[in-house]
Amino acid sequence: MQRPSAPSSSGRRRFLKAGAGMAAGAAAGAVMGRTGAAAAAAEADPTTLPPNVPWWGQYLGDGVAAHPYGMPSEFEAHVVRRNVPWLTATTESSVNFTPIHELHGFVTPNGLCFERHHAGAPSLNPADFRFMINGLVDTPKIFTLEDILRFPPVSRFHFLECAANSGMEWRGAQLNGVQYTHGMIHCVQYTGVPLKVVLDQVGVKPNGTWLMAEGGDASGMNRSIPLEKAMDDAILAYAMNGEMLRPENGYPLRLVLPGWEGNMWVKWIRRIEVGDQPWFAREETSKYTDLLANGKARYFTWEMDAKSVITGPCPEKPVLRKGVNQIKGLAWSGRGKIKEVHVSTDGGRNWMQARLATPVLDKCLTCFNAEFDWDGGEVLLQSRAVDETGYVQPTMQALQEVRGVNSIYHNNSIQTWLVNKSGEVENVRLG
Amino acid sequence: MQRPSAPSSSGRRRFLKAGAGMAAGAAAGAVMGRTGAAAAAAEADPTTLPPNVPWWGQYLGDGVAAHPYGMPSEFEAHVVRRNVPWLTATTESSVNFTPIHELHGFVTPNGLCFERHHAGAPSLNPADFRFMINGLVDTPKIFTLEDILRFPPVSRFHFLECAANSGMEWRGAQLNGVQYTHGMIHCVQYTGVPLKVVLDQVGVKPNGTWLMAEGGDASGMNRSIPLEKAMDDAILAYAMNGEMLRPENGYPLRLVLPGWEGNMWVKWIRRIEVGDQPWFAREETSKYTDLLANGKARYFTWEMDAKSVITGPCPEKPVLRKGVNQIKGLAWSGRGKIKEVHVSTDGGRNWMQARLATPVLDKCLTCFNAEFDWDGGEVLLQSRAVDETGYVQPTMQALQEVRGVNSIYHNNSIQTWLVNKSGEVENVRLG
Repeated sequence: MQRPSAPSSSGRRRFLKAGAGMAAGAAAGAVMGRTGAAAAAAEADPTTLPPNVPWWGQYLGDGVAAHPYGMPSEFEAHVVRRNVPWLTATTESSVNFTPIHELHGFVTPNGLCFERHHAGAPSLNPADFRFMINGLVDTPKIFTLEDILRFPPVSRFHFLECAANSGMEWRGAQLNGVQYTHGMIHCVQYTGVPLKVVLDQVGVKPNGTWLMAEGGDASGMNRSIPLEKAMDDAILAYAMNGEMLRPENGYPLRLVLPGWEGNMWVKWIRRIEVGDQPWFAREETSKYTDLLANGKARYFTWEMDAKSVITGPCPEKPVLRKGVNQIKGLAWSGRGKIKEVHVSTDGGRNWMQARLATPVLDKCLTCFNAEFDWDGGEVLLQSRAVDETGYVQPTMQALQEVRGVNSIYHNNSIQTWLVNKSGEVENVRLG
Repeated sequence: MQRPSAPSSSGRRRFLKAGAGMAAGAAAGAVMGRTGAAAAAAEADPTTLPPNVPWWGQYLGDGVAAHPYGMPSEFEAHVVRRNVPWLTATTESSVNFTPIHELHGFVTPNGLCFERHHAGAPSLNPADFRFMINGLVDTPKIFTLEDILRFPPVSRFHFLECAANSGMEWRGAQLNGVQYTHGMIHCVQYTGVPLKVVLDQVGVKPNGTWLMAEGGDASGMNRSIPLEKAMDDAILAYAMNGEMLRPENGYPLRLVLPGWEGNMWVKWIRRIEVGDQPWFAREETSKYTDLLANGKARYFTWEMDAKSVITGPCPEKPVLRKGVNQIKGLAWSGRGKIKEVHVSTDGGRNWMQARLATPVLDKCLTCFNAEFDWDGGEVLLQSRAVDETGYVQPTMQALQEVRGVNSIYHNNSIQTWLVNKSGEVENVRLG
């Protein structure tokens, strides 16, 4: 229902005002929509509660045959992935952002997992599917999906973040809404077979040090992957959150490279070639590299550094009342577990420790929360993640001192939300 | 696509034959359906692989705007919840079983979570929703959903099992299919507020020792819950697997009582009354009690004992070839973590230890797997869970020595699958 405005400050303000008005309208509707008895009960002095009888209606609803595969409530129809029409030329080469401000816990439901395609999401018939490993191996092999399913499975919760997540924000506060600034991420329980197990089946030759992973979509997606990562924690995954992959997430098989940029998690994977050097493919040279101030580009910047963001309050979730409010957010690191998250209400001058929800898992989203007491004045909300390596999420200023101002990818800087005196929340840039 | 047969052995056999035929047909289709080049590649000697070029088609698929809320692949349309029409009088008072043989990992996707209603699944407007706590409390209160959402959240993975899961099996091998024998279970990440936090807001009086939890559906579901459990690990949950509860799972608020029978996890919860004794409600007296041989009934048998089942091979997943095959399954305990799972291929004479997938969480499904080498002869597959208290999943014989033969609920006995010489799998009863 909300679309990002063009990156002008007046446009952002209109969007915010509209959002706040809708929230107020919804609250009024809640009161007016109630039937007489229920309304009286809700407004009543708690010491004079209605008698111990049904006090809002009991309904005979749907039977069990109504929904062989269930869907969310009609009242949650606003919780959907959204794209930004002006961001890309076509929807086949575009991104659909996860509504992270509407999530609870660290699991992303499959229907809301962010998707990024370079040439659309093909619908593959698993009966036709084949996966090949060739190149510097003892025995090149072709596997059916059934072959892959016969290996002992592993299941792990991992986040997948696009290297371009928050990419627009290098050039100031561009997008108003955490769905757009930070929604190129999802986190599910992936199930599949360790890539090492499959590679051991074909036997990598001693001079095989690099893999090329190739997708089955029309973009000819391919990426170079060092053998160490493949042998460490890479997974050939066929399932997410208990069921087979969704088409837009690579059905029936994708690569999972925990902690590394999403573009390398090749979807609809159909081939791995083993070689003795990287391929320098299009998507690791002309794209997914970081142009520095001196005109040279960093490449093979695979790991996603520690990052966090407050998902409430945020532009989509204004502060609705004075007094104690909850701060909720997500933190993650491609280098391991989250150790601490700090939050600030004064733009980073003072920090307090947030609570972390358990379990805190390796290369997985971690939920945090904290309280803040709102007196109606302006507040600058920030969060800062620290991972188990001791790495501390940096400011944009610190990042740009190293990388200059040409970057698109790997913006893991601290996000600032301005809560204004109306309780509306704006994406702002400090310093 | 498969429906359970009536409980006659000839019916079961017909069902199995049909199942095996379909599996074989699908495999044949896989070969015949391929295009020439791909078929040649798949049949080729691995040493003469096709050249390093695209070898199955690359497709331009859907753009990102096509599915704001995503759905499974069209090729997974058979993975759905199923009901058993002859089991109940109406679909509003019935059960939809989770296809646990199609799951991967321990998360159940929300669309496949088993549902059991006593009077349908109402569609509630969250703006109208109110939750009351009254009775022996200092300050009775009515909460809106927004009030509940303002408390600091907790998220935990827990299984929910109906006390009647496997209930038909007390009287012999009745249902052929693990979806029906063991599918009244699901496991998701629940998010909400600890019930203790909300009770502390209203102040339970010193003589308040029992709660009555009341649902907002047309069945007037209510159950008595001891205060200790409420103050221990109970959750008022509003979300599952990252998104708001599904209507059939209690949207917008349900009780979560980790490890306890599902009937007590009151859905669409609208009221908790605090009292000084249990209510002896209909669903804890005439139902959800265990009739013993002497005519007396056990009641308040809340905890779900340790249990496990092999989900592949199983009647829906025959053994397709000789040689090494995977055994996959699920184990759980209402008393804590799973410590070990043993599997047997000879009906329980010899046992071997299965691998457990990590993380192993408290009162959560745990996946296990092991190999077995099939020589084409008859095999009796069993699994046996041991939880962290040392409790060992019993045989049906052991259970019936204690409880007699009148039971419906709390059958956690060892399940036996007979793999016959055709590789088909039958539900059988030993001893």
